[in-house]
Amino acid sequence: MRISTLSIGDELICGEVTDTNAGTIAATLLNEGLRIQRHLAVGDNEQDIIGALNDLGRISDAVIITGGLGPTADDMTSRAAARSTGRRLIINEVARNHVRRMSEKLENLIVCPLGDKQAMIPTKSALIPNPNGTACGFHLMHNGCFMFFMPGVPSEMLAMLKETVIPFITARVPQKRSIRSFTLNIFGPCEAEVDELLLGIAKPEHGLTLGICVTFPSIRVTLRAEAENPEAATGLLQAASDLAIERLKDYCYSTGETGMDEAVAALFRENSMTLSLAESCSGGLISKRITDIPGSSGYFLEGLVTYSNSAKTRLLEIDTDILNRYGAVSSECASAMAKGVRKCSGADIGLAVTGIAGPNGVSEEKPAGTVFISLAASDGCWTKRFQFNGNRDEIRTLTAWTSLDWLRRYLLKH
Amino acid sequence: MRISTLSIGDELICGEVTDTNAGTIAATLLNEGLRIQRHLAVGDNEQDIIGALNDLGRISDAVIITGGLGPTADDMTSRAAARSTGRRLIINEVARNHVRRMSEKLENLIVCPLGDKQAMIPTKSALIPNPNGTACGFHLMHNGCFMFFMPGVPSEMLAMLKETVIPFITARVPQKRSIRSFTLNIFGPCEAEVDELLLGIAKPEHGLTLGICVTFPSIRVTLRAEAENPEAATGLLQAASDLAIERLKDYCYSTGETGMDEAVAALFRENSMTLSLAESCSGGLISKRITDIPGSSGYFLEGLVTYSNSAKTRLLEIDTDILNRYGAVSSECASAMAKGVRKCSGADIGLAVTGIAGPNGVSEEKPAGTVFISLAASDGCWTKRFQFNGNRDEIRTLTAWTSLDWLRRYLLKH
Repeated sequence: MRISTLSIGDELICGEVTDTNAGTIAATLLNEGLRIQRHLAVGDNEQDIIGALNDLGRISDAVIITGGLGPTADDMTSRAAARSTGRRLIINEVARNHVRRMSEKLENLIVCPLGDKQAMIPTKSALIPNPNGTACGFHLMHNGCFMFFMPGVPSEMLAMLKETVIPFITARVPQKRSIRSFTLNIFGPCEAEVDELLLGIAKPEHGLTLGICVTFPSIRVTLRAEAENPEAATGLLQAASDLAIERLKDYCYSTGETGMDEAVAALFRENSMTLSLAESCSGGLISKRITDIPGSSGYFLEGLVTYSNSAKTRLLEIDTDILNRYGAVSSECASAMAKGVRKCSGADIGLAVTGIAGPNGVSEEKPAGTVFISLAASDGCWTKRFQFNGNRDEIRTLTAWTSLDWLRRYLLKH
Repeated sequence: MRISTLSIGDELICGEVTDTNAGTIAATLLNEGLRIQRHLAVGDNEQDIIGALNDLGRISDAVIITGGLGPTADDMTSRAAARSTGRRLIINEVARNHVRRMSEKLENLIVCPLGDKQAMIPTKSALIPNPNGTACGFHLMHNGCFMFFMPGVPSEMLAMLKETVIPFITARVPQKRSIRSFTLNIFGPCEAEVDELLLGIAKPEHGLTLGICVTFPSIRVTLRAEAENPEAATGLLQAASDLAIERLKDYCYSTGETGMDEAVAALFRENSMTLSLAESCSGGLISKRITDIPGSSGYFLEGLVTYSNSAKTRLLEIDTDILNRYGAVSSECASAMAKGVRKCSGADIGLAVTGIAGPNGVSEEKPAGTVFISLAASDGCWTKRFQFNGNRDEIRTLTAWTSLDWLRRYLLKH
């Protein structure tokens, strides 16, 4: 079944608001084994809307439209729908009562003549009930294409999509195929390397596809299996997933929707170890990400953002000789910071970061992106030098990700 | 000039990743007085891409395409572009050298055979240089329509859009009207309050429009003046801007693209004061945002993320009585933290935060969102209790914004 989506609204086409409905609809339908072929967005302009409806109607079996059903003058989807399908706009009594009822129920909404505008529905169409708002949706069939019209408010749209639109569509899909998907999250190798590691796993001819998506600095690998029944799809996916995990080894820090921060948090909970941080160039970013996770107070003791040298010596008891001889951005300073914060705080693991995020403070031998990360624990202290590329923000992001990934790898082995 | 955008990628059409490029391009073009008529998105399917290019090419004078120029097998935009415009794909030596050069420059990226794929460019097209990545873009003219192809990585795309695509388009727009815009950034009042404060400023009939866009927790007010010549537009805008600034007073923390962090940083540089932070519930987020700004080491001494009570007593010399009598989340603890970090670090200003981000650790009298912020300086110490609404992430974000805004207001008066 060829399905398209259409988002209507000046705020979308002007870039004032990001269109999230398109993605929500696509993801929700995909779970039903239904793919979106095309997504289109146009502004609040009747001719543009009519043109979009005609074009999508021509190439699709179903079009899901959101936006432009509000009470104000710039909401003209209903009229455009009527025009493009050769219908008349008439007051729908059920819709009118719904608008009245909801208007009384919902605060800050006066019942004004405009209210009736939301009750104007094209003839020969069925209502899509809206449990969460005033605007009723409607659907109609035109030249063999089902068209579903819903308001753009995400919460209203989603309820109507799940309760009316999807059941209506799935009931009409001839022996629909089952789709199962599995996601692996990767940190370390670049896109090309991941692609090479996974070479030959995808078998489109057997309904097994593979998508690689870079969401800096992480990479999302999504395996998608399509088959005639759920069992076949699951089996197809299982085999491919196992192979992918085996190939990617410990580059894969999590599966599904679990982020790096949550993966690290889970390991700290399992190992019941405690952590303290000493950050210089990352300026608190690592502490921030550790404490993003609820319950982090269970294993995170403290984070010291020792930006000034005096803070390094006072808070981390770092020998001034080290700062004078090697400088604050040095392997020696990094390990002294890691050992210092571990000792002072009494944590099991002390992790420290010092480097040059730039653009200031760079030099020949220490360009922007020079970062030393050190991990101190009961079984030793290790320090690595990294050379990250990018702007200040990217360098700090890579510093935090690399530190978290190092913690993850250390905890996995203990 | 009729301009359309096309986003290519399975991750977009499957709802895995939200398409932000479409909005970025639309907003950037609008500042040049150019409107997007249609936005289209399709997956990594050659036939769908060709169909989209044909359809948009038919109705547009220019099409801006993003995505599908990567090195992997599922990147097929170049081939689709060649097919749909009747061109051949050939190795472009300039592009090949660029890929090689960038591959060496960017770390974690091996030069593999895949590299040459990114150097395959349709014949009779011009390159769009990519200063930030391996994939060159290209543009061509087909049946009277300009087509611009760029990679989907937002940072790479935006640079190419501004440096090559927009100058190319604007140079070809016949006597376009002048548009000037001015943006004010607001923190404090809600959208409805801002709307009321600015009542009557917009005069659409005279080409002066006003856009209010909520980007939590800040509000962007954009005034846009459209006239036949630059002078008229500037004059129209000036008067309205002055009035808006007068109405919004100190709710307005910056204008244009300057963020809250930069506004605060500028004030610290002017006043040559120093800052130290003691954070509990915000977990390093405020330090992170202060140090996001290059040169922050000039005024930021240290940030202590004192998550555990022992860290509070040891690092901030807080009397254990205070913790026992009033608890860590209390006005007394907040002011002790602010005074403590100021004294220990020798900073001019000590700012401290303690509260409950939730969902854990909540109680009857201290629900999630209870946050105490304290500012200690030479002329006194002030502590305020806030009750923020939202999830853990939103509460922490509001805590950081409110703290930064307080620093801004304090520095403005000194």
